[in-house]
Amino acid sequence: MKPNPIKARALQQIQQQLGHTFASTALLIQALTHRSHSAKNNERFEFVGDSILNYTIAKMLFDAFPKLSEGELSRLRANLVNESVLAELAREMNVGEALFLGTGELKSGGFDRASILADAMEAMFAAVSFDAGFAAAEQVVCRLFAGRVKAVDFKNQGKDNKTVLQEALQSLRFALPKYRIEKQTGEGTDARFEVSCDLGELGFICTAEAGSRKAAEQETAKEAMAWLQQKYPLKKKK
Amino acid sequence: MKPNPIKARALQQIQQQLGHTFASTALLIQALTHRSHSAKNNERFEFVGDSILNYTIAKMLFDAFPKLSEGELSRLRANLVNESVLAELAREMNVGEALFLGTGELKSGGFDRASILADAMEAMFAAVSFDAGFAAAEQVVCRLFAGRVKAVDFKNQGKDNKTVLQEALQSLRFALPKYRIEKQTGEGTDARFEVSCDLGELGFICTAEAGSRKAAEQETAKEAMAWLQQKYPLKKKK
Repeated sequence: MKPNPIKARALQQIQQQLGHTFASTALLIQALTHRSHSAKNNERFEFVGDSILNYTIAKMLFDAFPKLSEGELSRLRANLVNESVLAELAREMNVGEALFLGTGELKSGGFDRASILADAMEAMFAAVSFDAGFAAAEQVVCRLFAGRVKAVDFKNQGKDNKTVLQEALQSLRFALPKYRIEKQTGEGTDARFEVSCDLGELGFICTAEAGSRKAAEQETAKEAMAWLQQKYPLKKKK
Repeated sequence: MKPNPIKARALQQIQQQLGHTFASTALLIQALTHRSHSAKNNERFEFVGDSILNYTIAKMLFDAFPKLSEGELSRLRANLVNESVLAELAREMNVGEALFLGTGELKSGGFDRASILADAMEAMFAAVSFDAGFAAAEQVVCRLFAGRVKAVDFKNQGKDNKTVLQEALQSLRFALPKYRIEKQTGEGTDARFEVSCDLGELGFICTAEAGSRKAAEQETAKEAMAWLQQKYPLKKKK
């Protein structure tokens, strides 16, 4: 498969962002190919890439936080390795432009769908390892996640967004947030949940969509927390 | 911590089994130290070791089964990477003898508890990587699991034990097995489930214990299947 000039440019840019130039561009292309486009797609790559990502982040956190327990490290990793963070990274890297999607997915906006973007990211980590060895893939993940690992909030070590939001509201003596499923479509890996988070008396409501109810709730909690922090700047603990 | 002569010998044997001689024995000792023994235990190691194991098996399966889908690879991995297989490996390597346990765990037979053995195995994979790099740990996992990956039953590709048992019983026109929780103790990571599997009219019952109901059921299904195969040898499909 020869990519057209626009795709070729997008592929070039992604390699710059990854910090890895592929000896075999075919591997990168397969990593960016959704199952809706062809049988030679990124699903098997994703299986390997997911575990490269999990190991690399585990090791980064293990080194960065020598005093945290296994449970705390697990929570931190769950906050860093999930569809929403991977999709965020993919958007920063304009991965959407480089995706190979089937016509249906293209028309329905698949190039910006979080699950498709996240899968492509994981598949690319595998592609790098197939192209240049495990250490090369580890390095790519380290580079991409370095900022996020550094930014891990010590105060909220490993707490998930819902817990952070709940504690902030409690400390300000406001009522707890109400989460509600607004819409649910598809099943299994195609399931999508639209969830709302309502801060009641504060008059703030937001919604988010993700592949699971839990993930969507976490998304809304993050947004609500960002709003709350602007409105009621919290004192930082030392 | 200086191990006594008996422990020293057990540690020596484990290194032979792993195929890795530690530059820093302290790392091996920490990997074998349960939280009941001291604060410097294997829990953080286990967090990293688990992901080394997951990656290595993912890669082995990816290479060994080029035609399997991501879902099939995932199922195969779940059959290879679980408490029961890890404990089996640990018993083959006499890991129990080398464990550092608190007095309570020692008295209650912790040296042969599947969850403790499995955690120690994962922790040792991390210890090898800290001692000599990721590739060394990958090699250890490959050696230990090579036989099991080769032995993956193509016919039952990735099917779990319960499914295999159910299909075998159906093909022989027997009733489906009945699973029952016989005993449940502890909570969270300390939870233990004793489950029975009853083949009814066939007059076979067995029980197994594990950290989750599902895992215990899988164990009993495996044992029941072994019994069934002896009693009613199934024809092999080509």
